[in-house]
Amino acid sequence: MLKSQDKENEFTVIRDYFSDIGLDYLEDQGIKLSVGDDASVIKVPPTKEQVVSVDTSIEGVHFPKSMKAEDIAYRSVAVALSDLAACGASPAWFTLAISLKEINHKWLSNFKKGLQDISKEFAFPLIGGDTTKGNLCITVQVAGYVDIGKTITRSGAKIGDLIYVTGTVGDASLGLRAFNEKSSSKFSEYVKKFSRPKARIGVGEKLLKVASSSIDISDGLIQDLNQICVVNGVGANVFLKKIPSNVPNSELANLINSGDDYEICFTAQESFQDTIDIISRDLGVPIKCIGEIIEGKGVKVVSESLNPIQVKSGYKHF
Amino acid sequence: MLKSQDKENEFTVIRDYFSDIGLDYLEDQGIKLSVGDDASVIKVPPTKEQVVSVDTSIEGVHFPKSMKAEDIAYRSVAVALSDLAACGASPAWFTLAISLKEINHKWLSNFKKGLQDISKEFAFPLIGGDTTKGNLCITVQVAGYVDIGKTITRSGAKIGDLIYVTGTVGDASLGLRAFNEKSSSKFSEYVKKFSRPKARIGVGEKLLKVASSSIDISDGLIQDLNQICVVNGVGANVFLKKIPSNVPNSELANLINSGDDYEICFTAQESFQDTIDIISRDLGVPIKCIGEIIEGKGVKVVSESLNPIQVKSGYKHF
Repeated sequence: MLKSQDKENEFTVIRDYFSDIGLDYLEDQGIKLSVGDDASVIKVPPTKEQVVSVDTSIEGVHFPKSMKAEDIAYRSVAVALSDLAACGASPAWFTLAISLKEINHKWLSNFKKGLQDISKEFAFPLIGGDTTKGNLCITVQVAGYVDIGKTITRSGAKIGDLIYVTGTVGDASLGLRAFNEKSSSKFSEYVKKFSRPKARIGVGEKLLKVASSSIDISDGLIQDLNQICVVNGVGANVFLKKIPSNVPNSELANLINSGDDYEICFTAQESFQDTIDIISRDLGVPIKCIGEIIEGKGVKVVSESLNPIQVKSGYKHF
Repeated sequence: MLKSQDKENEFTVIRDYFSDIGLDYLEDQGIKLSVGDDASVIKVPPTKEQVVSVDTSIEGVHFPKSMKAEDIAYRSVAVALSDLAACGASPAWFTLAISLKEINHKWLSNFKKGLQDISKEFAFPLIGGDTTKGNLCITVQVAGYVDIGKTITRSGAKIGDLIYVTGTVGDASLGLRAFNEKSSSKFSEYVKKFSRPKARIGVGEKLLKVASSSIDISDGLIQDLNQICVVNGVGANVFLKKIPSNVPNSELANLINSGDDYEICFTAQESFQDTIDIISRDLGVPIKCIGEIIEGKGVKVVSESLNPIQVKSGYKHF
């Protein structure tokens, strides 16, 4: 409909910036046809089930306008991968649908670097997508594999299970604030936690035999844990002081639910404590017990003496 | 980042409008976990390869602002399905990432109707997605299956193969013009060709043993056929008069390449002519021979006496 006379068009953008991301992994991942045809063709291993997730990242909504192109690319894929991590899936391939206001070669070159970084980190290729003209908007679909019947889901938490969280909660929020303030605040080391979140794929893979349920906490720890409670018809006590965090004590109740932390919250029987400690040590990722699944409804954040503490609500998309 | 205090949020939108599209098909399509968890889980049949395609549809770019919500929904999925049709794949599932300016229940109800229509037509479910706040932008990923090694691709056309096209070329363009003019023009019957394009899935499935190469002509017949020529290092002669079209003769050279026709252009050996006639008759879809693959480079549109005819170039995305 809107036809521009620009000579540079979708074809050259795809060829130059999107056609060779993770080529080395195509064969291992069973990709028989990749970027450039009408569609991509994938041979899924017969012993595996495929786990897919989709995430859209929009400029000014999910990331600030001033963020670097390579970080926008990395982050857009990482936030989708985080859902695979929660399921215990190993990344296999991704597609990228991107709307761009204009063709800016410097920006696209940098964007490509971010795609290459995350493709290499998780050894999975970009196999297709769509390039359109519009406000900057990136939709990434990731797919991964798990042995048939083994995918960790939100369903499965039982009364008495302990609740765990990976990493530290609130770092991304501190980082985003430091980024926006552009000052060399003491929290500037956390900017990377926002701009280049680490999808906890390694942890997820190890949790396949351990976790009874799992979710990523991108919308906020308490809000996302509540999803697990709703699905399983249970409640949860979370001890505020046990939540691993770099947030100053005075702000803890405000920031633990602030979202953008691509960490995993999962439940497991108490008997797995030693196994979880070993996973944590082997991977160098903190995994802390923060509470317990109880009879009832909803998540209560409590003090050591079980007094309820009010926390700010999580991310709402509208 | 942008947190609204609206009570209606992503969760209720997903529950009310996206969680039950094609539920009846989940089991048959091997979907073990669908909308509502971190990710979807799919068991791909072991004798099949999976074909995936992604298409983004943006208001004001890919469809007019005034288009009905149910048509926007239907069309956004149909344009992605058209790529599966070109590959000969049978639809298995789709995901939907949608950005909305606001939550408008009437609009969303109508949008849901369009999703239900296409889900039912092709017996495949919506299994996941993402709902975000932004300008209206819809990214659909579709997946389908083909017997291992049988997917039709752009690659395979050989010198001497005949070139075929399904349906009539230019209808969508005439329909869009009639839609924009809002008059009861003689082309108003074609509006549906633009707003509810028929993905040629049935034809694609039958072409698996027939076509040597295939592409959908959404960017314009000649431009897309040229993609086949480039990939295979061949040229093509297309006879203007043989192109099936409702476009007035005086406009034919301008409109045959106008895009938005979700028809299939494929190549096949001459010996398949009878088989192709039978497919066409059985499915009630016109399939016409329009030219021949030749030695050389590029697509030449020619008169009956092989004189070259200039045609307008196809859709450019930027």
